[in-house]
Amino acid sequence: MHFTVIARVLGIFLMLFSLTMLPPMVVSMWYSDGATEAFSVAMSLVLGIGFFSWLPFRGVKKELKTRDGFIVAALFWLTLGLAGTLPFMLAENPGLSFADAFFESLSGWTTTGATVMTGLEYLPKSILWYRQQLQWLGGMGIIVLAVAILPMLGIGGMQLFRAEMPGPLKDSKLTPRITETAKALWYIYLSLTIACALAYWLAGMNTFDAIAHSFSTVGIGGFSTYDASMGHFDSALIEAIAMFFMLVAALNFSLHFYAWRYKTVRHYFVDSEVKFFLFVMFGGALLTVIALWMTDTYDFGGAVRYGLFELVSVATTAGFGTADFSVWPVFLPVLLFMMAFIGGCAGSTGGGMKAIRILLVFKQGLREIHRLIHPNAIIPVKLGKQPVADRILESVWGFFALYVVTFMVMMLALMATGLDQVTAFSAVGSCLNNLGPGLGEVSAHYGNISDTAKWILALTMLLGRLEIFTLLVLITPSFWRS
Amino acid sequence: MHFTVIARVLGIFLMLFSLTMLPPMVVSMWYSDGATEAFSVAMSLVLGIGFFSWLPFRGVKKELKTRDGFIVAALFWLTLGLAGTLPFMLAENPGLSFADAFFESLSGWTTTGATVMTGLEYLPKSILWYRQQLQWLGGMGIIVLAVAILPMLGIGGMQLFRAEMPGPLKDSKLTPRITETAKALWYIYLSLTIACALAYWLAGMNTFDAIAHSFSTVGIGGFSTYDASMGHFDSALIEAIAMFFMLVAALNFSLHFYAWRYKTVRHYFVDSEVKFFLFVMFGGALLTVIALWMTDTYDFGGAVRYGLFELVSVATTAGFGTADFSVWPVFLPVLLFMMAFIGGCAGSTGGGMKAIRILLVFKQGLREIHRLIHPNAIIPVKLGKQPVADRILESVWGFFALYVVTFMVMMLALMATGLDQVTAFSAVGSCLNNLGPGLGEVSAHYGNISDTAKWILALTMLLGRLEIFTLLVLITPSFWRS
Ligand SMILES: [K+]
Ligand SMILES: [K+]
Repeated sequence: MHFTVIARVLGIFLMLFSLTMLPPMVVSMWYSDGATEAFSVAMSLVLGIGFFSWLPFRGVKKELKTRDGFIVAALFWLTLGLAGTLPFMLAENPGLSFADAFFESLSGWTTTGATVMTGLEYLPKSILWYRQQLQWLGGMGIIVLAVAILPMLGIGGMQLFRAEMPGPLKDSKLTPRITETAKALWYIYLSLTIACALAYWLAGMNTFDAIAHSFSTVGIGGFSTYDASMGHFDSALIEAIAMFFMLVAALNFSLHFYAWRYKTVRHYFVDSEVKFFLFVMFGGALLTVIALWMTDTYDFGGAVRYGLFELVSVATTAGFGTADFSVWPVFLPVLLFMMAFIGGCAGSTGGGMKAIRILLVFKQGLREIHRLIHPNAIIPVKLGKQPVADRILESVWGFFALYVVTFMVMMLALMATGLDQVTAFSAVGSCLNNLGPGLGEVSAHYGNISDTAKWILALTMLLGRLEIFTLLVLITPSFWRS
Repeated sequence: MHFTVIARVLGIFLMLFSLTMLPPMVVSMWYSDGATEAFSVAMSLVLGIGFFSWLPFRGVKKELKTRDGFIVAALFWLTLGLAGTLPFMLAENPGLSFADAFFESLSGWTTTGATVMTGLEYLPKSILWYRQQLQWLGGMGIIVLAVAILPMLGIGGMQLFRAEMPGPLKDSKLTPRITETAKALWYIYLSLTIACALAYWLAGMNTFDAIAHSFSTVGIGGFSTYDASMGHFDSALIEAIAMFFMLVAALNFSLHFYAWRYKTVRHYFVDSEVKFFLFVMFGGALLTVIALWMTDTYDFGGAVRYGLFELVSVATTAGFGTADFSVWPVFLPVLLFMMAFIGGCAGSTGGGMKAIRILLVFKQGLREIHRLIHPNAIIPVKLGKQPVADRILESVWGFFALYVVTFMVMMLALMATGLDQVTAFSAVGSCLNNLGPGLGEVSAHYGNISDTAKWILALTMLLGRLEIFTLLVLITPSFWRS
């Protein structure tokens, strides 16, 4: 471990993060919303802490090794989650407690989008901007993590990327090529955001709302500046735009990277994960629309409009709302949650287990059945035309099982705080999948649950975002011994 | 496929089953409970159908092949489940509908123990006896299936047995050595039942109750002759006896077979699965007792007595009750259900995923973490001192994933019939794990749900008992092609 380098890197992250408080500060001055001082104090504090973490180690020339990656990845979200609490606590409105502020900040950073606040319309514009921006930055962080760092750490079979994907890196030194890849990803991410904001604006949102919602759309975060979320605009066009950009952001950014570098789109249509992801989306959408229509929840037009939007929103783990799906009939609320467990594609801003892992689990399930019929046949699991190494399949299985177990443990923990089964199921599912909305007591927001429950859910968000293993490795004694 | 042999084998099963209607008929005559005719008609019908299935193929000398095993295993439960409906429908009391009778019969055969009936005290004694006996026969069937047949089919990693266990068989012809093993298992099963009945009787049950409850204890079925289940007797001694025999019946009968043949008990204490199973039981018991005590649900003595009994009863998937755990505080109902997902040991009469699979999933999870830390190390997964073949691990993963997916699909299906989330969760969990009791609308019995829901749950019981793959293989086209 190179703690000096880790401190230097985190110091740089903090300093960079402090600079991101400038835009909300400008917003605050523009609207004279009274939160300017909160942002300037927060900025100074974070800048100072970052500076003094960096200063003593600025000359250290060591490079980050693969193993340091686990620590940096975990501390990145934790440290910035902590630093991000400041404006929420310092601003008179909302003036959150530490537990609330940490929940909100981490929910932003991890692009979960669960909120403890209501009456968003009465918050300072700058705080609203800041929340949206957190999700946008978090989304960028995830892509770099997922495309450039996790594959190198080999978590949950994501070394797939190393072998198959264009772009990322096959050696074990993190620094130089990560920077290069990250820069390209940043351009793509920024371009998508600008396109999304422009589309929203052309469709009728005001400039502030357009930018704010583009942040949380491309980041698949799901925060909104209104309690009614996307439903506030009551515009089928805006919903269609949101759906398009959620779907784009839920695809693997390595594919966007490839498209950007080689000016082609053909590769999207041959990618196994994209095909599987869209297939699952289509199936889920069909089931949702039919169920809404047959139960007379909406007329056919309404079933298509609200059904499609909520399905895409929940299944990509964005979590925007145009309808309260928690009161939809029969199996629909649970179905949507199960879709969120699949989530987006690997290397996207989406949460969940990721489509490619579910695809591999499914393919191996099929293989097992065929093996029962032909016990002596050798049947490889393939993606496209390439056989997938057993080592990768094992990682995927490990991830799947651990995800299920984590879900159950966190659900029991949450029920121990006194929440009922449906609330606990949905809150843990929502936070682990970085989705946002829940059912039962958390169907509108997370403000009324106990602080203990909030801490448990904050940890759950972090576990989901770090694909569980990153945190588990850190509490393994042998990680620290060697 | 050898349909002629399959018909002959099923014919023999049916004829044998018809003979098992003699004891309840004798009970009926003894108590003059008015159901004698129902049993004599049912017996004649089943005997006749069995005879005419067997007659045309009695001379066929072909042997069953491994693949026929899938069909026989599936049809064994289905055919006998159907045949078992007759007394429930023919007897004036209870005079069940076909759907109810099939649910009750299959629930007996699969040792699930979910019931659609209430007012058990007012049923004819012979019907009560018959229900208990179904579970006892089902338990015997499961052991033969699990110890002698499933390993040969290679389902869900259970080929482990072939390599490791004493007794069972390494060649692929089913008939001769199965008969031999089955006979030995039968002696063991019968001896355990007699010991259990005797213990119940000495502890104060009358002869009828003692025999009836020994049937459903050793079969881990959970049917009782009273609505209040084991709680009816309100005797700590009887509860202790039940716990002992549930735990013994939840161990691998291959171990009992070994103990019987070599007159030793040492092997119990070195078996990895037994150690893991008891460890999990101990952890669950500790958590349950502490939670009951700390929430003041009972005083300390009550927490130990009711907590231990319900935990052992649910975690072994027996499902007897001395307290209504569905109203226990916080996470306890859900925790008990999760324990039932682990279930008993492989090759026992218990349900669930089986301790050894969970142990292997857990060990491979640990391996994944170590691999992340030491990416180039070769780390085998071991049971005791023996490395487990990758092929077996893959089967176990496949089983685990399929179990989770089956659970979700069946839960959605059940919710589609209009049941709420907690009821659907618990009913599917209970039937898939062959447990019995549920939460919500099915916490007392399954009588009030719709027929559609009952059919779904009956299928779920069958899926659980046949370890899912047996049924899935049968609906795979390539199974029938070759
Ligand atoms: K989200
Ligand atoms: K049972």
